[in-house]
Amino acid sequence: MLTIYGVYRSRASRAIWLAYEIGLPFRHVPVIQAYRLADPAAPGAPLNTRSPEFLRINPNGRIPSIEDDGLVLHESLAINLYLAKKYGGALGPADLAEDGRMTMWALWAATEVEPHALQVLFHRAARPPAERDPAVARAAVEALRAPFAVLNQELAGSGFLVGGRFTVADLNVAEVVRYALPAPELFEAAPAVRAWLETCHARPAFKRMMEEREREPA
Amino acid sequence: MLTIYGVYRSRASRAIWLAYEIGLPFRHVPVIQAYRLADPAAPGAPLNTRSPEFLRINPNGRIPSIEDDGLVLHESLAINLYLAKKYGGALGPADLAEDGRMTMWALWAATEVEPHALQVLFHRAARPPAERDPAVARAAVEALRAPFAVLNQELAGSGFLVGGRFTVADLNVAEVVRYALPAPELFEAAPAVRAWLETCHARPAFKRMMEEREREPA
Repeated sequence: MLTIYGVYRSRASRAIWLAYEIGLPFRHVPVIQAYRLADPAAPGAPLNTRSPEFLRINPNGRIPSIEDDGLVLHESLAINLYLAKKYGGALGPADLAEDGRMTMWALWAATEVEPHALQVLFHRAARPPAERDPAVARAAVEALRAPFAVLNQELAGSGFLVGGRFTVADLNVAEVVRYALPAPELFEAAPAVRAWLETCHARPAFKRMMEEREREPA
Repeated sequence: MLTIYGVYRSRASRAIWLAYEIGLPFRHVPVIQAYRLADPAAPGAPLNTRSPEFLRINPNGRIPSIEDDGLVLHESLAINLYLAKKYGGALGPADLAEDGRMTMWALWAATEVEPHALQVLFHRAARPPAERDPAVARAAVEALRAPFAVLNQELAGSGFLVGGRFTVADLNVAEVVRYALPAPELFEAAPAVRAWLETCHARPAFKRMMEEREREPA
């Protein structure tokens, strides 16, 4: 059986959402980010990204990781491409050209969007107000205008990224773009992105993941 | 026929090296980075990443892009995964597990290594000395110690990343790690990484790419 390592409040949400889309059962090991703990090495501390037993699974000390039929994989977007190809049917690629485009969108999201979107999230929502820097948030929003315009142009066609249907490419990119939600001005300027993200977030599998996430102890 | 857009002195080197490994003929369109030109919009300026005719191919304004049988792809590491699967034989994955690991290493390199390795390159080698900041270089070197340790541990086994042979995973990661060469202390602490990079750089296809690169007008 598939094992997913990582709490819901992490990039593990991506793999969990996909597993729910597929109806793929999994064992969930809620490894938590070490930086969220006062003392990750304390006796009795929960299993975390600096725990020796997790570092044996992922020496990078990052979540999520998965184990599937003896294969250990890291990197959330690569995990999802793998799971979609193995188990996802039409959520995965129909041919090598779609495979190439799905991989392209994953790398695009990880490099063009995610670093800036995380700054938006940190400095407009996630950090305590006293630790937010509005200038950092503004710079991140400015950096996201160009990739949002590219995404908007792409989605203005069929409404999806690859093959005119909802696929793992949409799921992966949507999970990265979600971090930028505290910048509504980006979505106002990119109506096709806004409509697409609403479509993605209306999916039962996404809602189920978010409900489980809310139930997870903070 | 495959078309590769992008000068050798760019991430297009990655796709060109792979094409040479495979023996895959291609048409080369030497699109140059706009930031390297005094006035990219001047009449008679060379084709560059802000030229309207290139933005119609890649609205992100990045190189490389490829066109292959009507498929346009961007993101160098995704391009290489696609080309290896389509044309690369044993350079590509033998099965879905190898495919997953090759994709994982591409995302790992792009997120864990490349941002820091570029800072090493800029602030120790590429920029004019007056524009280098030793503190930025030092911080980037420190940030690379953990990923270099992970890579070293992985390579200490078979000497390659996937399947015990040289594959597109090694090529992709090697091209990212190359940017960190101006930090020899990283390689001294990671002997398996140093030996692996030397092996990669001894390949005739890499040497041919670098020779062509040297011939390209600066």
